[in-house]
Amino acid sequence: MRLLDEQALRDIATGSAVLGTGGGGDPYLGTLVSLQALARYGPMQLITADELDDEAMVVYPFVIGSPVPLIEKFPLGKEMVQAYETINRFLHGRVQAVMPVEIGGINSMVPFFIAARVGIPVVDGDCMGRAYPEVQLVTLTMHGIGASPFAIADERGNSVVLYTIDNFWAERFARSISVDMGAICAGAAYPVTGKQVREAAVLGSISYTERIGRAIREANAAKQDAIGAILEETNGVLIFRGKIVDVQRRTSKGWALGECVLEGMDADAGARLVVRFQNENLVAIRDGEIIASVPDLITIIDAESGQAITTEHLRYGFRVVVLGIPCDPKWRTPAGIQLGGPRHFRYDIDYVPLEQRFATAGRTDGRQVSGV
Amino acid sequence: MRLLDEQALRDIATGSAVLGTGGGGDPYLGTLVSLQALARYGPMQLITADELDDEAMVVYPFVIGSPVPLIEKFPLGKEMVQAYETINRFLHGRVQAVMPVEIGGINSMVPFFIAARVGIPVVDGDCMGRAYPEVQLVTLTMHGIGASPFAIADERGNSVVLYTIDNFWAERFARSISVDMGAICAGAAYPVTGKQVREAAVLGSISYTERIGRAIREANAAKQDAIGAILEETNGVLIFRGKIVDVQRRTSKGWALGECVLEGMDADAGARLVVRFQNENLVAIRDGEIIASVPDLITIIDAESGQAITTEHLRYGFRVVVLGIPCDPKWRTPAGIQLGGPRHFRYDIDYVPLEQRFATAGRTDGRQVSGV
Repeated sequence: MRLLDEQALRDIATGSAVLGTGGGGDPYLGTLVSLQALARYGPMQLITADELDDEAMVVYPFVIGSPVPLIEKFPLGKEMVQAYETINRFLHGRVQAVMPVEIGGINSMVPFFIAARVGIPVVDGDCMGRAYPEVQLVTLTMHGIGASPFAIADERGNSVVLYTIDNFWAERFARSISVDMGAICAGAAYPVTGKQVREAAVLGSISYTERIGRAIREANAAKQDAIGAILEETNGVLIFRGKIVDVQRRTSKGWALGECVLEGMDADAGARLVVRFQNENLVAIRDGEIIASVPDLITIIDAESGQAITTEHLRYGFRVVVLGIPCDPKWRTPAGIQLGGPRHFRYDIDYVPLEQRFATAGRTDGRQVSGV
Repeated sequence: MRLLDEQALRDIATGSAVLGTGGGGDPYLGTLVSLQALARYGPMQLITADELDDEAMVVYPFVIGSPVPLIEKFPLGKEMVQAYETINRFLHGRVQAVMPVEIGGINSMVPFFIAARVGIPVVDGDCMGRAYPEVQLVTLTMHGIGASPFAIADERGNSVVLYTIDNFWAERFARSISVDMGAICAGAAYPVTGKQVREAAVLGSISYTERIGRAIREANAAKQDAIGAILEETNGVLIFRGKIVDVQRRTSKGWALGECVLEGMDADAGARLVVRFQNENLVAIRDGEIIASVPDLITIIDAESGQAITTEHLRYGFRVVVLGIPCDPKWRTPAGIQLGGPRHFRYDIDYVPLEQRFATAGRTDGRQVSGV
């Protein structure tokens, strides 16, 4: 068990935005949520999955919906607590720890808010190792673990509990309810035991985000290359340098859908990269050819600050680099590719792991590339 | 307490379609549901509200959604039982009786299916005295009674429980979930005590439908005027005779929305009547002027058989009569008119009670008109 201070929380939020692949919420808002909780309730406890008893019950609290309204309609915490309390009531008060469902600027931080407020620990890990736009896209689904009871709450005091036959139905109902609730609301779902966490979750991902966040912070402080520091920490590849020349974004069924068009600079001058997103970046298309896709992570980084830019903050004129980061190995199994690979998002291509494509194409920008 | 036999159930279904004002489901399907239950589980018990203890817990099981898919996707009973069992579980197994939420060809009958299957009585009454297309449009809402917990289930095994701050939010969430479930699903909601039933529900409406159904059956058997028999039983008025010349119908947000255009015959020759509906008939417009509106009942009856025609069965060429039937007095209070009157459905007119309009216009077809 470790107690987290302000610096740790800031680094976790910064690193989470990198692994959030454009989604998972704004790290600035995530930082606010967790620092507010820190000030009010004191340091948060982070534990490893090994510290959980086999039978300990863990749940995943999160924000669900489009990140766009989140900017104007910031969750006050009331709905997060209500979603957590609803699921805990339906589990007869047996919840002992929380864990992020995904890694992202906000959804990495929500469990810290709940943990501090309720006085329970956060487990170091999540169940995506990245952010994904649909609630069934978790490693737990690959392991046959159901999302129910799935609690949803809004800031008005409404709550909804789903009991579904599979996690695809949970996604369908939760999405509709999130739209009714104003395109964003709080959720808590996927009750699992300590044993299931160790078998089916992505472990250590909070520490991983902290290392990334720290690397960015230290590089900036030393006026060194923050992008290089991220690549080193993540075994990522730099897949494009350029300027944003167009952003198309619409909110549909509660998602932010769209694409960002980049005009190449430096080594990529003359080329064009299109990054398509559904809350999260899904594919990167260079001059008509898909060069990176889910389940690998595609992240757009501000070229100056080394900070990840979420899809709702993409703007014309930004100078950025696009990074590819290898996904967790669970996503590279046949079950993982079927669940969260390109075909799920209607891209009719075979998934090619990032390292394979970039090793072949020799586009790794001179950096060493390896698996996670 | 009275035991209902096949004849009673058939009469109730027939009469319910008349008060269903075009919605509430097909009486043929409703009859099937209840006769199947009768054959399998034996006679149903009908009790009056006076037979309930003050503290007895009563719930309302129903089908929610558009009646259109109901024709092809007939509920098998599994989802109805699941919705009932879900609400009963959330009420700690305390449910002692059921009651129709509305009067309609199917929704009058659903409680009989549940009652027979579970072995509890049906209370003679409902909470609309008609059918309405939204779940907050119940007399219970006027009395400040909430719909939660509100259970919803589909035939696949999914269930959802709503806890909402008011009944308008219950409608919103339930509607979305019904669309996700295939535009039709089963619900059970509005837990009330025996005392609340006596104060806030519409009492005796099952017996009322039985009297109407019996009157139609006996008139037909005696080759007498079935329409006249309905008018006598309901204190209704004949507002139009004509032929259906156009039907527009679309399914939107899980409702059957549209209008039916009639060309006048006999005394109404040369005139045109438009009946607009949202599952249920909302307004009747004669040559551009609204001559009847919610909360009063507008029912289209087959001129030959005297059977009510639900909105999904309206077809070009049918010869019909349009009846107006006075609503329950609760709907004529200021709170009732605000809740279920024309302005709720975006018709910017003051509600004029049927008898007032037709007494003035002298269009009662010679029949005596009075309140319910």
